[in-house]
Amino acid sequence: MRETLADWRPAIDEAIADLVPREIDADYLESFFGAPTYEYDPAGIQHALSTPLWDLLDRGGKRWRAVLFLVFVDGFGADPAEYLPYACIPEILHNGTIIVDDVEDEATIRRGEPALHRIYGRDIALNAGNAMYFLPLKILTQDPADLPADRRLAAYEMLMHELNRTHLGQGMDICWHNERDVRIGTEEYLEMCACKTGCLGRIVARLAAIITDQPPEVERAVAEYAELTAVAFQIGDDILDVENSLGRAGEFGKEFGNDIREGKKTLLVIHALQESDAEQAQRLQEILQADTTADDEVLEALAILEDVGSIEYARERALDLAAEARAAIADLDFDDETAWKLDEFTEFVIERDE
Amino acid sequence: MRETLADWRPAIDEAIADLVPREIDADYLESFFGAPTYEYDPAGIQHALSTPLWDLLDRGGKRWRAVLFLVFVDGFGADPAEYLPYACIPEILHNGTIIVDDVEDEATIRRGEPALHRIYGRDIALNAGNAMYFLPLKILTQDPADLPADRRLAAYEMLMHELNRTHLGQGMDICWHNERDVRIGTEEYLEMCACKTGCLGRIVARLAAIITDQPPEVERAVAEYAELTAVAFQIGDDILDVENSLGRAGEFGKEFGNDIREGKKTLLVIHALQESDAEQAQRLQEILQADTTADDEVLEALAILEDVGSIEYARERALDLAAEARAAIADLDFDDETAWKLDEFTEFVIERDE
Repeated sequence: MRETLADWRPAIDEAIADLVPREIDADYLESFFGAPTYEYDPAGIQHALSTPLWDLLDRGGKRWRAVLFLVFVDGFGADPAEYLPYACIPEILHNGTIIVDDVEDEATIRRGEPALHRIYGRDIALNAGNAMYFLPLKILTQDPADLPADRRLAAYEMLMHELNRTHLGQGMDICWHNERDVRIGTEEYLEMCACKTGCLGRIVARLAAIITDQPPEVERAVAEYAELTAVAFQIGDDILDVENSLGRAGEFGKEFGNDIREGKKTLLVIHALQESDAEQAQRLQEILQADTTADDEVLEALAILEDVGSIEYARERALDLAAEARAAIADLDFDDETAWKLDEFTEFVIERDE
Repeated sequence: MRETLADWRPAIDEAIADLVPREIDADYLESFFGAPTYEYDPAGIQHALSTPLWDLLDRGGKRWRAVLFLVFVDGFGADPAEYLPYACIPEILHNGTIIVDDVEDEATIRRGEPALHRIYGRDIALNAGNAMYFLPLKILTQDPADLPADRRLAAYEMLMHELNRTHLGQGMDICWHNERDVRIGTEEYLEMCACKTGCLGRIVARLAAIITDQPPEVERAVAEYAELTAVAFQIGDDILDVENSLGRAGEFGKEFGNDIREGKKTLLVIHALQESDAEQAQRLQEILQADTTADDEVLEALAILEDVGSIEYARERALDLAAEARAAIADLDFDDETAWKLDEFTEFVIERDE
């Protein structure tokens, strides 16, 4: 069982289609949701659930949460094919959060096409996104791998813990976004990443550990690996935006200075405000708070970030996090190929250029 | 333990405050969400979670889901006080759905004040509402009543089942609302009610049965009672709107013809379209589909509903449902007072006048 990432995608999509078919009929509804008391409306459910879900999935996405889950399962010596339905859990949860986040952020574009709420309406998109929080959790009840009760309970308790923390992280992020001043420091920022992005990573790792019955210290180690990698990924995102902006300073295109124009409180910005002198800090805040930002103001903000060493600082922290992630699982008995894949993954999240 | 409904409210609110305190601090965050990897932002969580949650709860609400849960627990011979934290589960879930529904419907008013998203912004309101889907589910993990593992697992599996059906019901409702024509019949409408409103009722009843370890047939019976009562309640809502409109025909106030102006596909409307002649049906559809509706058009629609006997039909169905609800639990060994309370409840949902 040594497939590469891309090889798994069709099987993952098939497993998702077993959970939510592309075409909804009364038989599916009855088997998944139970017999109706009166009568279901399959056409309505098609429109409210299956169509938006598959629209989003068909736009792409690497399904890497499902793949990472399968890499762990494989590394734990179990057969990934047997646990394919469980791989859908973090994948569908993730896509659900995307839909909801886009409503919250009033995003216009998602994966190169209009955000779902711009196509189906806010109500349908939101309900579909929320439904995707609960649809995959039913896999544990259906229990295709015939897991013993204690593992299913452990999985539910783990999921409730992590999904609570996800909303904590999203709450902090939204709150800071709505505040004019930058009130928080780098450690609060990293905690937000650990909660918001890290928890879905932790779900991937812990679910693989729980369903294959690993001891608690192994579950903790892979959870730490996944959280650290996710936080590094988030910082990588922040760096990428600044680097793209610096690289494209001559073009002033749409991609130029996105985060600064949005006034986003990234790790780089928070660091710069902490480390710069009073005058620079004042100016950076002004630019971030402005409703519209001219290209030369973006350049000015970027210059402050460079001057204070915030790009270097962020890169160092991301590299440290990736190293910590590798160290977290160094003592586990993974085979060489799994260990190599997991190492590779921590490098990819920082070195990617898109 | 023979308190009336109102007597329980302070204790329920105290139990909710144990789960989400009015004032958030780092100690609470650590005890509920676990130690942070870096550092929490209590002020941010206060604003993102506790403030909107308590704003909504402090506006009122009878907490009847929590109370009904306690009535069941009492009726099953257990001590309600011991299970107070579990009573918060359906109550917080319900209030979470209110916040999310208001975003989906773009509602302006909730419990006499601006809808939460109009005060805190759509992003904060939505995230708080979604957090309220997962916060209460952690009570089962905290397990204050020291339940055995099999009951906790049964509770999680039940909750996942019912919360999936809730989103199915909401999906159908939104979908029909967005459609111009009335495509569905009375049985699909009742199914939507059974899913959307009934499932939260089922959660109340089944949770009480599960945590007090009732046999499956008792759990099924109280679930049926709760679902039927909830559907009757929903129909009661539809009737109330029409009756208020007829009663206030002289005033033409804000409350006059709400459902008709919104083009709501109520049981009465669906019945009228099925039973009326082609001309009446055509006219009713026109009035429902209009973007603005004059008072005399509302009166015309109401006259069609009256003429076809739709009000009588809806009342008959609601009364039948309430009778079915009482019959569902008639064979259970409840004490007289519990039996009386549960009977009373099925009558209240139809006879109320607000």
